[in-house]
Amino acid sequence: MSTSSPPSSAAPVSVLGLGMMGTALATALLDAGHPVTVWNRTPAKAGPLVARGALPAGTPADAVAANPLVVLCLLGNTHVQEVFDTLGDAVAGRTVVNLTNGTPAQARELAAWASEHGAHYIDGGIMAVPQMIAGPHAYVVYSGDEQAFRTHRPTLAAFGGTKWTGTDPGLAAVHDLALLTGMYGMVIGVLQAFALVRTENIPATGFAEPLVAWIQAMLTGVPEWAGAVDSGEHLTDVSSIAVNQSAFPNFLTAYRDQGISGELFEPFQALLDRAMAEGHASDGLSRLADLLRAN
Amino acid sequence: MSTSSPPSSAAPVSVLGLGMMGTALATALLDAGHPVTVWNRTPAKAGPLVARGALPAGTPADAVAANPLVVLCLLGNTHVQEVFDTLGDAVAGRTVVNLTNGTPAQARELAAWASEHGAHYIDGGIMAVPQMIAGPHAYVVYSGDEQAFRTHRPTLAAFGGTKWTGTDPGLAAVHDLALLTGMYGMVIGVLQAFALVRTENIPATGFAEPLVAWIQAMLTGVPEWAGAVDSGEHLTDVSSIAVNQSAFPNFLTAYRDQGISGELFEPFQALLDRAMAEGHASDGLSRLADLLRAN
Repeated sequence: MSTSSPPSSAAPVSVLGLGMMGTALATALLDAGHPVTVWNRTPAKAGPLVARGALPAGTPADAVAANPLVVLCLLGNTHVQEVFDTLGDAVAGRTVVNLTNGTPAQARELAAWASEHGAHYIDGGIMAVPQMIAGPHAYVVYSGDEQAFRTHRPTLAAFGGTKWTGTDPGLAAVHDLALLTGMYGMVIGVLQAFALVRTENIPATGFAEPLVAWIQAMLTGVPEWAGAVDSGEHLTDVSSIAVNQSAFPNFLTAYRDQGISGELFEPFQALLDRAMAEGHASDGLSRLADLLRAN
Repeated sequence: MSTSSPPSSAAPVSVLGLGMMGTALATALLDAGHPVTVWNRTPAKAGPLVARGALPAGTPADAVAANPLVVLCLLGNTHVQEVFDTLGDAVAGRTVVNLTNGTPAQARELAAWASEHGAHYIDGGIMAVPQMIAGPHAYVVYSGDEQAFRTHRPTLAAFGGTKWTGTDPGLAAVHDLALLTGMYGMVIGVLQAFALVRTENIPATGFAEPLVAWIQAMLTGVPEWAGAVDSGEHLTDVSSIAVNQSAFPNFLTAYRDQGISGELFEPFQALLDRAMAEGHASDGLSRLADLLRAN
């Protein structure tokens, strides 16, 4: 069993899937001195890695046979299941680390399949773009088979920080999606803000610094919202649903006046309206997290 | 003319509108040693301020007659115009600082009215909740009559930082709305993230720290997006529209699987889809700011 013998500092690894992210992962392993076997549906993508010393595998089964630790980074989890189906019991005893983007439900299904076929399954969510892999700010959230994770953590550290989220294989995806959701919200706000200032020919480059400073200042309130979400006690004397609901029409009017689309923020007004209609006027915005669940 | 004589450190000020924010503004002026005259539609709200030394005015005209500098903080700019209509030429020679939440178009209309009636008009957007007023992190963006602003800036500094945005009276509202838009996007992301982790009984309080750290890390990319928005050159090798458009369905699927609403993020998928359809696959997300304007 792969999990019973601790890997050396140069434990061999197979990497399946050589898109931008898979290539970055395989490169990080090579840079850290690991023997790496690679497979990709389109074999040509393995070329640069092979030139750097990776061994090409002709099939997923060959790649999985080569090494006890197998890292998958494919376009989606339907592709992972397809690869699993070609492998069958050939994965028995292997540790499969699936870093493909996916949902918690998909991770749980794949973990169940792996378990039925005698493999150790770890799911992971990469908190980085390919260019950040192995750098100081990259990290990966993991969940699933904890013993296998402990065994292979030194190898996985080649990608960046390793953060364990629990034995439920869906937890890494939950954390990954929730972190990225927070980022996408920020992105939506920043892009709409840039669209707005550009209507007055205000340079976005000059506006970026006060915008980032303001968002950073407002992020200091997040722990308090978290406490309200956990306790269900949303009453506030700072910034109530009523105040925000009555102020927000100005935003939608201004977007329209200035000739930009309000499409990204119209649902927020609707949610504020619903919160008012349901009697949450004196609660803080944290109440909206509960309303999103009550649907 | 009020703008021709520099105010003493204790220049007298009239404050119209004593909601939570107006009360905070009047309090800050009193704390800074300014004689303050106050008016509110519901006179009872003036009680605590009068107890602290403010002079109550029976009508807006009385308040405006009392002092050369008049600060307005009403529920909306329709209320400001109503007050203006009761004043008529009584505002001549006064400097009116309108800190009521509003749109750029409203600010320009009010500035035009004030100019016709011989008043100096300054519009402002308060970047703070009432509890932050006079504190180290509060600031107000101003635009409009620059000479009047320079004259009264020492008095206005009682509220917090003073940031001049230009002589076009609409500019303060543009900056204010754009900064708050960025914040609302962040809020949307954080609340959706909390809703998601709570479906797995993950405490939001424990998740807040990595969430804030991740958003802060991603904020470092904002100046680069700003450069792309200003130049119109959105090509990227980091995180393309194509990558995001193909990844985002996982988010909407996961929200649905986990039993939370995707209503706040569905328009983002639609916008990514439109960006793909319009041929921007290889551009970064900054391209979306342009698409919001092209509607």
